[in-house]
Amino acid sequence: MEKSKKTQAALDHIKSKIREIKDWPKTGVTFRDVCPLFEDPKAFHEAVDFLRDRYSSVQFDIVAGVEARGFVIGSALAYSLGKGFLPLRKEGKLPGPNLSKTYELEYGSSTLEVQNFSSRKGLRVVVVDDLLAKGGTLEAACFLIESCGGTVVEASVLVELSTLGGREVLKGRGWKTFSLLQYDED
Amino acid sequence: MEKSKKTQAALDHIKSKIREIKDWPKTGVTFRDVCPLFEDPKAFHEAVDFLRDRYSSVQFDIVAGVEARGFVIGSALAYSLGKGFLPLRKEGKLPGPNLSKTYELEYGSSTLEVQNFSSRKGLRVVVVDDLLAKGGTLEAACFLIESCGGTVVEASVLVELSTLGGREVLKGRGWKTFSLLQYDED
Repeated sequence: MEKSKKTQAALDHIKSKIREIKDWPKTGVTFRDVCPLFEDPKAFHEAVDFLRDRYSSVQFDIVAGVEARGFVIGSALAYSLGKGFLPLRKEGKLPGPNLSKTYELEYGSSTLEVQNFSSRKGLRVVVVDDLLAKGGTLEAACFLIESCGGTVVEASVLVELSTLGGREVLKGRGWKTFSLLQYDED
Repeated sequence: MEKSKKTQAALDHIKSKIREIKDWPKTGVTFRDVCPLFEDPKAFHEAVDFLRDRYSSVQFDIVAGVEARGFVIGSALAYSLGKGFLPLRKEGKLPGPNLSKTYELEYGSSTLEVQNFSSRKGLRVVVVDDLLAKGGTLEAACFLIESCGGTVVEASVLVELSTLGGREVLKGRGWKTFSLLQYDED
């Protein structure tokens, strides 16, 4: 389906606010900095409203956001749709009881946690982060949602680095992905 | 001015969703966990809408949020008012150029950073965090806003631990504080 001119103009505007930083955080990596997008009122609202429109007719219960940039987009999305917001945090930040999931990064590992003091059985969850690369973080996030009894409706990101295979990693686990913007180079 | 019954009922509902955890993260501290508030759609929206109503007639440009819980409330507030969102992050998370401010915690120290690649001269900023205790974090946050040329309209939190003196610390620097809920015990 061809995108309308208005839709394409909004996507182009959002994309224009994402800064490229070469060799950060390390040599050879081009970092996609979404902070200027957050700062720009028009681009920020356009981005959130794309996701709002996508999920407004979807039956789900809560938006989960991955610390920390996923909090920014996820919280605004939750607010826009009258939903609550479930934070998925780095290790040691949440008073328990928690469920934890450690996952591999290019160098070393990281751990995400979710509070699990109330039952989440049957909860339908949209999982939000700013960016999908190799998929390790979102795989851990979706795993946590299912571990505490919830169902992942979709993993949703602003930026997908399409060549890095994150979408396929999530698909292999049975989770769908939506990305607002795609970059073919890594 | 006496609060209306409806207002008081909403505040009571929000407060009922804040979990108290004794002796976390260390013995003698009672932690106020706002995550259940974020998760509850009604309480989350009530809380954001109190802030939205407070700032809807105030002339300002952007909401700054302190990592990470300040991102949740600050981003939803920014969205609700058609503003952008400026993240104030922990050290090492933002590609530069950044301004940094190190501040003392009860044990050790921490550093907040703000991106400063564009001029923020004249920017009027509402600074948001979840909680005000002794005021060190918000003092650093407001300092950063002024360091990059902005003006702090107000520091705004969900929870104020009134006996710990944070409000006075900020007042001593010329910054106003608003808190939705106050706890007299620490």
